[in-house]
Amino acid sequence: MTKSTIGIGLIGLGVIGGQVAKVLTERADMLSQQAGAKIELRKIKVLPADMDKPIARSFNESLFTTDDDEFFSDPDIDIIIELIGGEKPAYNYIKRALDGRKHVVTANKEVIAKHGLDLMNFAASQGVSLYFEASVGGGIPLINPLQQDLRANNIKGIHAIINGTTNYILTRMSIDGIDFDIALKQAQILGYAEANPNNDIEGIDAVYKLAIMASLAFQYRVKPEDIYHEGISNLDARDFKYAKELGYAIKLLAIALQYDNMIEVRVHPVFIRENTFLANVNGVFNAVSIDGDLVGHVIFSGEGAGPKATSSAVTADVLRACKDVLTSAISKGINLSTQKSLKPISQITTRYYMRLNILDSSGVLASIARVLGQHDISISSVIQKETDDLSKTAEIVIMTHPATSQSVDEAIKELDNLDVVKKIDNIIRVEEL
Amino acid sequence: MTKSTIGIGLIGLGVIGGQVAKVLTERADMLSQQAGAKIELRKIKVLPADMDKPIARSFNESLFTTDDDEFFSDPDIDIIIELIGGEKPAYNYIKRALDGRKHVVTANKEVIAKHGLDLMNFAASQGVSLYFEASVGGGIPLINPLQQDLRANNIKGIHAIINGTTNYILTRMSIDGIDFDIALKQAQILGYAEANPNNDIEGIDAVYKLAIMASLAFQYRVKPEDIYHEGISNLDARDFKYAKELGYAIKLLAIALQYDNMIEVRVHPVFIRENTFLANVNGVFNAVSIDGDLVGHVIFSGEGAGPKATSSAVTADVLRACKDVLTSAISKGINLSTQKSLKPISQITTRYYMRLNILDSSGVLASIARVLGQHDISISSVIQKETDDLSKTAEIVIMTHPATSQSVDEAIKELDNLDVVKKIDNIIRVEEL
Repeated sequence: MTKSTIGIGLIGLGVIGGQVAKVLTERADMLSQQAGAKIELRKIKVLPADMDKPIARSFNESLFTTDDDEFFSDPDIDIIIELIGGEKPAYNYIKRALDGRKHVVTANKEVIAKHGLDLMNFAASQGVSLYFEASVGGGIPLINPLQQDLRANNIKGIHAIINGTTNYILTRMSIDGIDFDIALKQAQILGYAEANPNNDIEGIDAVYKLAIMASLAFQYRVKPEDIYHEGISNLDARDFKYAKELGYAIKLLAIALQYDNMIEVRVHPVFIRENTFLANVNGVFNAVSIDGDLVGHVIFSGEGAGPKATSSAVTADVLRACKDVLTSAISKGINLSTQKSLKPISQITTRYYMRLNILDSSGVLASIARVLGQHDISISSVIQKETDDLSKTAEIVIMTHPATSQSVDEAIKELDNLDVVKKIDNIIRVEEL
Repeated sequence: MTKSTIGIGLIGLGVIGGQVAKVLTERADMLSQQAGAKIELRKIKVLPADMDKPIARSFNESLFTTDDDEFFSDPDIDIIIELIGGEKPAYNYIKRALDGRKHVVTANKEVIAKHGLDLMNFAASQGVSLYFEASVGGGIPLINPLQQDLRANNIKGIHAIINGTTNYILTRMSIDGIDFDIALKQAQILGYAEANPNNDIEGIDAVYKLAIMASLAFQYRVKPEDIYHEGISNLDARDFKYAKELGYAIKLLAIALQYDNMIEVRVHPVFIRENTFLANVNGVFNAVSIDGDLVGHVIFSGEGAGPKATSSAVTADVLRACKDVLTSAISKGINLSTQKSLKPISQITTRYYMRLNILDSSGVLASIARVLGQHDISISSVIQKETDDLSKTAEIVIMTHPATSQSVDEAIKELDNLDVVKKIDNIIRVEEL
């Protein structure tokens, strides 16, 4: 028997939840036609406080429930959409929904980054599906391409600008020549950064998204805590000035590479050549470059956040889940590779940009070069920048050839102990795309 | 009963067919694991001449057949892949496969552009699926995003660089300052253009691809013959020189727009601002920008052709068809909108670049401006370029404000009759992205 109505339950009535509820109701006819069955938003599970929101008035009051048991045990709900964000209680809700054999659609990057593979396997064992396109890159298709369109490929690498807040801040710092604190303030005023911006500026948000993409791309359990990360708060207007002079842009990149059964995953600021595509992705835009052994480099770009863009991805997932409901498709779990292992950050090799404050006297460069040389770090170029006559110090910028993280850490420690080095101002990796 | 083996039949052993056969055999384990059933390439339908190709030696001879009846009636073939290209006999093969209730995967842009909607509906009536991701943009996911990821959106527009041959030629003309004929020769030597390059340089190839994308995006039957098109062979090194001076790039764009229930579809060279994303897509790369009312602008980019990239898309489609085989998914036809209509090219409004050779004497500009003004074309800027003292002629470049195609055609005819206008060198639309 083919179902004629597919019931949807929604958890959460925040900005994303409200927008999704709007799309599901306002576009019900168009979506139902596409699904081949009537799609009906049956219940919205809310907190009592949600009922006072202006958005609540757009919906019939009978849609709302604060009663978990009523919501999860409604036999007419086939698909549950989770849009409250954060790990708990969202994780428990998703688990409970799958346990009750409901298909689940979520935009929750934290839950998927931490528990996605287990939840996918649990969904499969329950005979239902779990979709999470909106967890990475807002409305930009990324999860579905990794799970479907590119799956004949061995994925060699992912390079991603995947956090709009930090990309906005970096764009402002680059274009306006302003310092980090001021750029962050601007982002907060415009609503691009939260009052507590730590998750974004420290790279945690990008870590979650990279964990999700890398796990799918490499069929390997990449946990958030496996991903080395640095934030952007140490960047200085001077770094942008020098980057520009040298022909580079500074971006916060999420990078995942696979070679020789080794996996390399990291999130940190990088110098990338200004003529590359990613260097020119500005403002709150996201862009992900995926390198497959058959397809070559494929780029996906667009607005990475916002309620409308996110509702596009959530609704597409709902339609996919509808197809599963109608065809009783048997969802498959994910088969993880056991051959691969993670490369420790200490062994990862890149070029480096180093900005140092040194004593402006003869022989200083020679001492620095000697220390670097002892750690197998060879110098590609050195430029002496501003000199301060009063303090007799100078700022120098060193670009190195490829060196391991470990060598650089050790060299930096040693340099810091040299009397002639006043301060290590910044050390930033240089990535060749 | 769940099928344990899914049989594949392949039509064609050209460069694409050979590569797909390689992927299906060399990656059989990985693909089978992903499909959840053994994927087996059972038969390759070839022409007798194919058997002499070096690629033929890579496969067991028993795989090959030249017998249509044997091929199409093999009960163990569930999915047929068509990779011979061209309208006939490919169309008949696809029809016959669907008629025999085989799922079909094809990379054939001509067949899909001309018959895609009917074939999709026929497939649905037969209870099987028709997939054609590789028909547009090689390995770049475009069809599946339009059919799945973006379908909660009302699509407002598509702007696409969708033909690698012409984009390569335009890139060479722009960077090297060379003329069209030389750039075409270079493209032919490098294998980026065919011996008979007409389909590419006249925009026919782009027309097919735009017809496919626009039909899906707008749920409207956009036929290839509905699409206005101009090729690139009239472009001159001078146009590129002036474009650069004015801050523009010249690209062959495929454009589809939808507004007020009107649909606008066209393929022609355009001036686009040099700081836009599409202006910086160079060489054989393709890029498609899709504007959805929820998702905003999403960009998909990558290599748009080549056997490996194409095999990535074909294989993804095979895996989708496998899921349909296993779930007995009922394919849906496409519901076409009856509310919409095509806007005639004469009514389409854009800005224009005009390059004219005129008599170098006083009052000439005034006469030209008068003619344009009589046709409601207002001038945004005029630059007098090279002057030839001997012939007493000068070259001028006019940038206009938005005007309809019809006004411009009429004005040009009138200008051409002016004694002071020696030659209309070129007229190119200017597109604001």
